[in-house]
Amino acid sequence: MIIRLDRLQTELPPPSDPDPAGAAAVQELMGGRFGEMSTLMNYTFQSFNFRNRQGARPFYDLIANIAAEEFGHIELVAATINTMLTGASPTDDGKAPSASLAGVKGVGNPHHFLAGGQGALPQDSNGRPWNGDYVFSSGDLVEDLTHNFFLETGARNNKLKVYEMVEHPAARALTGFLLVRGGVHQVAYARALEHLTGADLTKMFPAPRIPTEKIPECKPHIEEGLHLKLFRFSPEDYHEIVAVFNGPHPETGEELEVVDGFPAGAPPNDLPAQPAVFAPDYAPEEIAEIAAKLRDRAGLPKEPTGVVANA
Amino acid sequence: MIIRLDRLQTELPPPSDPDPAGAAAVQELMGGRFGEMSTLMNYTFQSFNFRNRQGARPFYDLIANIAAEEFGHIELVAATINTMLTGASPTDDGKAPSASLAGVKGVGNPHHFLAGGQGALPQDSNGRPWNGDYVFSSGDLVEDLTHNFFLETGARNNKLKVYEMVEHPAARALTGFLLVRGGVHQVAYARALEHLTGADLTKMFPAPRIPTEKIPECKPHIEEGLHLKLFRFSPEDYHEIVAVFNGPHPETGEELEVVDGFPAGAPPNDLPAQPAVFAPDYAPEEIAEIAAKLRDRAGLPKEPTGVVANA
Amino acid sequence: MIIRLDRLQTELPPPSDPDPAGAAAVQELMGGRFGEMSTLMNYTFQSFNFRNRQGARPFYDLIANIAAEEFGHIELVAATINTMLTGASPTDDGKAPSASLAGVKGVGNPHHFLAGGQGALPQDSNGRPWNGDYVFSSGDLVEDLTHNFFLETGARNNKLKVYEMVEHPAARALTGFLLVRGGVHQVAYARALEHLTGADLTKMFPAPRIPTEKIPECKPHIEEGLHLKLFRFSPEDYHEIVAVFNGPHPETGEELEVVDGFPAGAPPNDLPAQPAVFAPDYAPEEIAEIAAKLRDRAGLPKEPTGVVANA
Amino acid sequence: MIIRLDRLQTELPPPSDPDPAGAAAVQELMGGRFGEMSTLMNYTFQSFNFRNRQGARPFYDLIANIAAEEFGHIELVAATINTMLTGASPTDDGKAPSASLAGVKGVGNPHHFLAGGQGALPQDSNGRPWNGDYVFSSGDLVEDLTHNFFLETGARNNKLKVYEMVEHPAARALTGFLLVRGGVHQVAYARALEHLTGADLTKMFPAPRIPTEKIPECKPHIEEGLHLKLFRFSPEDYHEIVAVFNGPHPETGEELEVVDGFPAGAPPNDLPAQPAVFAPDYAPEEIAEIAAKLRDRAGLPKEPTGVVANA
Amino acid sequence: MIIRLDRLQTELPPPSDPDPAGAAAVQELMGGRFGEMSTLMNYTFQSFNFRNRQGARPFYDLIANIAAEEFGHIELVAATINTMLTGASPTDDGKAPSASLAGVKGVGNPHHFLAGGQGALPQDSNGRPWNGDYVFSSGDLVEDLTHNFFLETGARNNKLKVYEMVEHPAARALTGFLLVRGGVHQVAYARALEHLTGADLTKMFPAPRIPTEKIPECKPHIEEGLHLKLFRFSPEDYHEIVAVFNGPHPETGEELEVVDGFPAGAPPNDLPAQPAVFAPDYAPEEIAEIAAKLRDRAGLPKEPTGVVANA
Amino acid sequence: MIIRLDRLQTELPPPSDPDPAGAAAVQELMGGRFGEMSTLMNYTFQSFNFRNRQGARPFYDLIANIAAEEFGHIELVAATINTMLTGASPTDDGKAPSASLAGVKGVGNPHHFLAGGQGALPQDSNGRPWNGDYVFSSGDLVEDLTHNFFLETGARNNKLKVYEMVEHPAARALTGFLLVRGGVHQVAYARALEHLTGADLTKMFPAPRIPTEKIPECKPHIEEGLHLKLFRFSPEDYHEIVAVFNGPHPETGEELEVVDGFPAGAPPNDLPAQPAVFAPDYAPEEIAEIAAKLRDRAGLPKEPTGVVANA
Repeated sequence: MIIRLDRLQTELPPPSDPDPAGAAAVQELMGGRFGEMSTLMNYTFQSFNFRNRQGARPFYDLIANIAAEEFGHIELVAATINTMLTGASPTDDGKAPSASLAGVKGVGNPHHFLAGGQGALPQDSNGRPWNGDYVFSSGDLVEDLTHNFFLETGARNNKLKVYEMVEHPAARALTGFLLVRGGVHQVAYARALEHLTGADLTKMFPAPRIPTEKIPECKPHIEEGLHLKLFRFSPEDYHEIVAVFNGPHPETGEELEVVDGFPAGAPPNDLPAQPAVFAPDYAPEEIAEIAAKLRDRAGLPKEPTGVVANA
Repeated sequence: MIIRLDRLQTELPPPSDPDPAGAAAVQELMGGRFGEMSTLMNYTFQSFNFRNRQGARPFYDLIANIAAEEFGHIELVAATINTMLTGASPTDDGKAPSASLAGVKGVGNPHHFLAGGQGALPQDSNGRPWNGDYVFSSGDLVEDLTHNFFLETGARNNKLKVYEMVEHPAARALTGFLLVRGGVHQVAYARALEHLTGADLTKMFPAPRIPTEKIPECKPHIEEGLHLKLFRFSPEDYHEIVAVFNGPHPETGEELEVVDGFPAGAPPNDLPAQPAVFAPDYAPEEIAEIAAKLRDRAGLPKEPTGVVANA
Repeated sequence: MIIRLDRLQTELPPPSDPDPAGAAAVQELMGGRFGEMSTLMNYTFQSFNFRNRQGARPFYDLIANIAAEEFGHIELVAATINTMLTGASPTDDGKAPSASLAGVKGVGNPHHFLAGGQGALPQDSNGRPWNGDYVFSSGDLVEDLTHNFFLETGARNNKLKVYEMVEHPAARALTGFLLVRGGVHQVAYARALEHLTGADLTKMFPAPRIPTEKIPECKPHIEEGLHLKLFRFSPEDYHEIVAVFNGPHPETGEELEVVDGFPAGAPPNDLPAQPAVFAPDYAPEEIAEIAAKLRDRAGLPKEPTGVVANA
Repeated sequence: MIIRLDRLQTELPPPSDPDPAGAAAVQELMGGRFGEMSTLMNYTFQSFNFRNRQGARPFYDLIANIAAEEFGHIELVAATINTMLTGASPTDDGKAPSASLAGVKGVGNPHHFLAGGQGALPQDSNGRPWNGDYVFSSGDLVEDLTHNFFLETGARNNKLKVYEMVEHPAARALTGFLLVRGGVHQVAYARALEHLTGADLTKMFPAPRIPTEKIPECKPHIEEGLHLKLFRFSPEDYHEIVAVFNGPHPETGEELEVVDGFPAGAPPNDLPAQPAVFAPDYAPEEIAEIAAKLRDRAGLPKEPTGVVANA
Repeated sequence: MIIRLDRLQTELPPPSDPDPAGAAAVQELMGGRFGEMSTLMNYTFQSFNFRNRQGARPFYDLIANIAAEEFGHIELVAATINTMLTGASPTDDGKAPSASLAGVKGVGNPHHFLAGGQGALPQDSNGRPWNGDYVFSSGDLVEDLTHNFFLETGARNNKLKVYEMVEHPAARALTGFLLVRGGVHQVAYARALEHLTGADLTKMFPAPRIPTEKIPECKPHIEEGLHLKLFRFSPEDYHEIVAVFNGPHPETGEELEVVDGFPAGAPPNDLPAQPAVFAPDYAPEEIAEIAAKLRDRAGLPKEPTGVVANA
Repeated sequence: MIIRLDRLQTELPPPSDPDPAGAAAVQELMGGRFGEMSTLMNYTFQSFNFRNRQGARPFYDLIANIAAEEFGHIELVAATINTMLTGASPTDDGKAPSASLAGVKGVGNPHHFLAGGQGALPQDSNGRPWNGDYVFSSGDLVEDLTHNFFLETGARNNKLKVYEMVEHPAARALTGFLLVRGGVHQVAYARALEHLTGADLTKMFPAPRIPTEKIPECKPHIEEGLHLKLFRFSPEDYHEIVAVFNGPHPETGEELEVVDGFPAGAPPNDLPAQPAVFAPDYAPEEIAEIAAKLRDRAGLPKEPTGVVANA
């Protein structure tokens, strides 16, 4: 089971100029074959289906623990898309309903507007839904790890490409962070395979062959050492990741490191209402009023208790 | 972001007679339109995409918090399927590779054996993958809640039907638990809608019209009061669920209750290797040996640190 | 627009021994690539998209009119499947919820029970949903008609195969009728192409090469002349079908005939409740009671006004 | 079975400036999860699969009768798309085949041109086909009605969004009409649920929370009282809808009304040929000539008998 | 089994101005329902599944042999798309990774860049994958041939439309060639049906009704007589195609001709690296260096042995 | 382009007892994610999309050449399925149409009978179509090779599982051969990666960890040395595979070997007609008669010229 913290794993910038075409491209990192839905669900199912866990505990712990980190990644991708879509419809609701969305006709993914409330979807950059065929869970440990190494490589490719295609600050912050963290998982699975078979996959780094440090938005995270650290996303479990995640980083030679706990993260931005798409309502203030009353009746403080970046 | 605990939300029985045809049916609760992948991902995306959270905090907290519980549900469904598939191939590896799977030709979901290691899949009972079209996230709060109420109703229908179709003890334990917990979510969303619109959906309970208490496997959970409790699946967040989840239970009249913390749960069973399908290997003992060495080298205790039910 | 008559185009037998495996096969005639959903939707979209109708009126009328008949065909397939599924779960609701569906575990299409109420689905015999890719509407009249001739040929193949596979009386009555009526459409499209291009497609009859009259269940319909008649499914429109549908029947040499009106048809059976799957409810008598009150309040007669075969 | 009338349920404007990007967006109302294919097929299958009809006749009649109206809605959406695509390719066939479609490269849904003849498709706004998974037919009456209420709410959302995005006169005429009629269905299902369970869903109106009367194109239909009327789409059946559809309109308080018959509707426009896409032919006049001969030979009047708006 | 020649069936122009929007349209000819993947796989499966080959040898030979030609067609479509995408990202790798793909945001199929290396995909013009449902292999010879005739007609339609939409020289060269060769297959299947049933389908030519000779890019191939020739794509087999492919061409009256061997074809262009998308690498020269060493070590000549158009 | 030889790459046994349930399982090797359609199409697209071929010629040659071999593998899988389905319907056509397929109701993949003529389909073991999402063609050479190594590993897993599940002689002959040949491709891609990056993937062999030599049906092929040989499937091209495929076999230490030409193969069995499913016709002898006449008219010898195993 999981516990949820209302924080992002890294800080994202607040909304700036909307970029619906860019948001449509970023969807590849959500619902594409190599998107974060795929990394999350692959490792999640592999951990669920892991047999003889006690006999192979360090490997079980590794996969189960990385799965937990990936949830934070789909959250970041969603927050990025939502940020990029903010402002794409006019907030002047006096104008509604007439032609509030005329400006985005033919731009980006129409479902962002017609089906959703300017919000992220479990779709790829072609508007096709993520599906369970993207999950590989053979039960064979070596094979699952080989897959995971390949999956992380494909994911790194996609992140680099999205980086190249989309210049919006939120997309750049996202890919800068994900490239560093995805790189750690690539290393982790390569090390696991090396421990099990002796095959030295670390010689394949970086794959694709562009060093992460060449990406400006990756640098602050590298300076923080985030390219070396595997967090333990559990108060009591997954201690044995340390048995796998160790040795030198294949590119820099620095020592890999297990952090005994999860990152502090950052509070999310509370993105503004988009009344033209009824998110969260045609008249958001009515909901706010009801919420205030309910909070009062429940003895909660007058101010919302949630922590947001732009409080 | 999430933290992961290596525990199930409820206890499941250990493997008994395998039931691959039953396991294929239970997949509906995983990857069907109304399966737990759907409840998890619907609430997760709705929470990601929630705009003006501070203005509608109690509702945001409700959806985000229930999403966290649903992760535990896909975990339970997977554990059930894995339990039911255990023993479906012979463990006498001396016999492999010859005809170890002849006994399951034409039985159940062939992917359980051909694609996986006798493990759960993100598919439904027809062997079709879960997909992102099952996620509804309109951004419109009233509409999303209406959907969620309907989704939980459809989910309850499916659980009841799987209960009727599959008599395996693990399936019965699963559905007994999920029916009680799903019922709580049905109530929660109905109450949220009532708070927002005044519509009294609680008059629709139970839907389908069979009372949960008629299911023997639900009774112990009802006696524990689990049909009344909404857990707060976070150490620091989602305090405002109490503003929505309150009042009497629509069927029993008992007072609904927010529990300030998550359930204790139970350790999972460590399911045995199935060497005929190479899970976790054709020769599991070799992996165990490597794992032991790695643990030793990392300074970990001789015994695996993971907590399992059948240690 | 359409008007709906609560009658079937032909009589179907009442429920007898249930046949869930057979019902799963009959789904091919509903949601398969060559099923009745496909014939209905192909001709419907082609009629919607028909340009320069006045200039090509006889052909527009032909396609639009056959589309109307096809609705009656999906209705018949559904009624057949529903008839075959009746009785597959026990009606002794005292037994529910325990194991009422244990008898159909691993039999037929699980969605008939888990997702539906022992009712027809827009799926094929593999449990896959019908989809819009099965619609061909190029706008090019000759091409659309070529497609339709091919579609009817594929449909005839599927009907013959389902006939061979499923011996249930309802399936036999269904295929006996559909083979005769589908044959008329095959002829109609062949004639249309002949009128437009001179190509003599009627030499390809019968396709597949087994004469319809060899099927015992087709005989009564042939004796009635149903293999020669095209009904005009409209009170005021589609008069010009007579300009296309004429000449001798390619197999028998008898004259083709346009009937100025639609067939009398037969009232449907009112299939009994299946409380184990909550269709129409766990306690059907409660709904009946409410319905009676509502009818009374609305000044309707005490007895239901609907006409059913088994009143 | 059905009878087909060659009339639209409401009048649509003739072609004006083509709008292929807008037409691609309007496809959401055809083949999207909440499009008219979905309303049509959901109610159609629910009516087919309805068990114990005599015992629940008013509810059966309601669902079966609304299904009939929905056919007219897919027809209207198709006519709108076809109207918007008219003129998107040059009609000067002397220019063909060279680059007649260069102007629509990268604009809208390429299948409108490459696969079809500038005609509607059973696809959504992302170019994905409608599929049978969008049909919910559980057999459980309360559940099916809950679904239908939710479906109509989602459909209203989509119609409002398309209204906002597309300013083409045909799209505005379409959404203006559909919003009013869809609103009637929302009310009908809410009332049905209220009759069965006592739950007062009418308090949720309007959903989304923007009143229909704020849409200028809805006003003429509201003035005609179309927001209050449920037509009986059958000469002899579905009399008992009056037992469900009654009481005050939830927003205006006016009395709901059953109309004993179907609306007069309006003749469709006969949209001109688009020879660049071979619709209905590369040389439409050749088909017209053949048609004229066939009509003559069949003894039909010299002028086409079909009734069109632009005769 | 097959033997592969590293040559294209016709010459294609070298890269010129990139046209990613056009490349997205050309994908319809690859992965659309009527694309070359479909012709290839339909005839391939039909030949695999052909029963009683000796008894129907001329027809088996015809289908099997045309299947072989179709492989060359998917190759040509891919080469065209690759040519059109060449240059769409800057080759100045000094600029990478920053915004190298900004110019193609929102243009064409994003998978050409995000998922691939500016390369062809098994997708259609809507970015949806080709799938096995597009294969029709009923085993019934007359029916399969009817399908094939229809398939080639739909394919001709699509080629004409792509011709009209895309003016890029590579796309024009492609469609000019495919229209001529596809026309031969249309004739071949029509003749086969005529031999088997007597139906004179050749009267339907050309379908669509625009003569191939009106397309300037078709003319050189017609002048070469390519519209009359069926090549025998095998050194030893498929001799009996001559028993089916004979008689006059339906449009020109010229005699059809079997060529005893395959066409000479032309060497492909070696398309340049696109380092911004890592194709074949971020630093292509490193791979070249390794390749040179491996070639040397294997005793191969210094210059690559492969034959390319732009050596 | 390709040339086609009417021979199988290995000999398959003639039909024996039909095994439709087994045939449904073997479909995984055709249309599953790791089936032969996937290996064929992955390498084919990668070769089509390969940029800077001259600079990386040995690697281009390797991928293009293995693609050619894979065509022979889909052919073998199809032949196996067809063999296993032979005899599953009665050949006593006097019995048709009545109930000829009653014996296969609920057994195996219904499309083998309802949609096809007891023939192979591009579907997997769950009856789902192969689709283009299974193709990975990133353009990045190292990444594509990593994928291919992983794909071959997954394919080997699936072959082993099908071997274990299906005891039919044809299935055993098939998997025995494919395991040996697939193993060669696994080695080839591992070597390619080693040459490019230095990573020693050969230490991962065998994966899954069961040695090929333990499979009795593999032994004859191993004795022939087929586990060491890479054939050059071209008369003139792909000479540079020798630069990559060299060194010792990772499991046996024997030297890898490039064979300068393709294997002799074996003629296919001519599988008998199945008139109950109209393959190739309801009355196969009529087609044979027509074929004989056509052959005569074309001056072909009296006996069919095709070479089959069971002439």
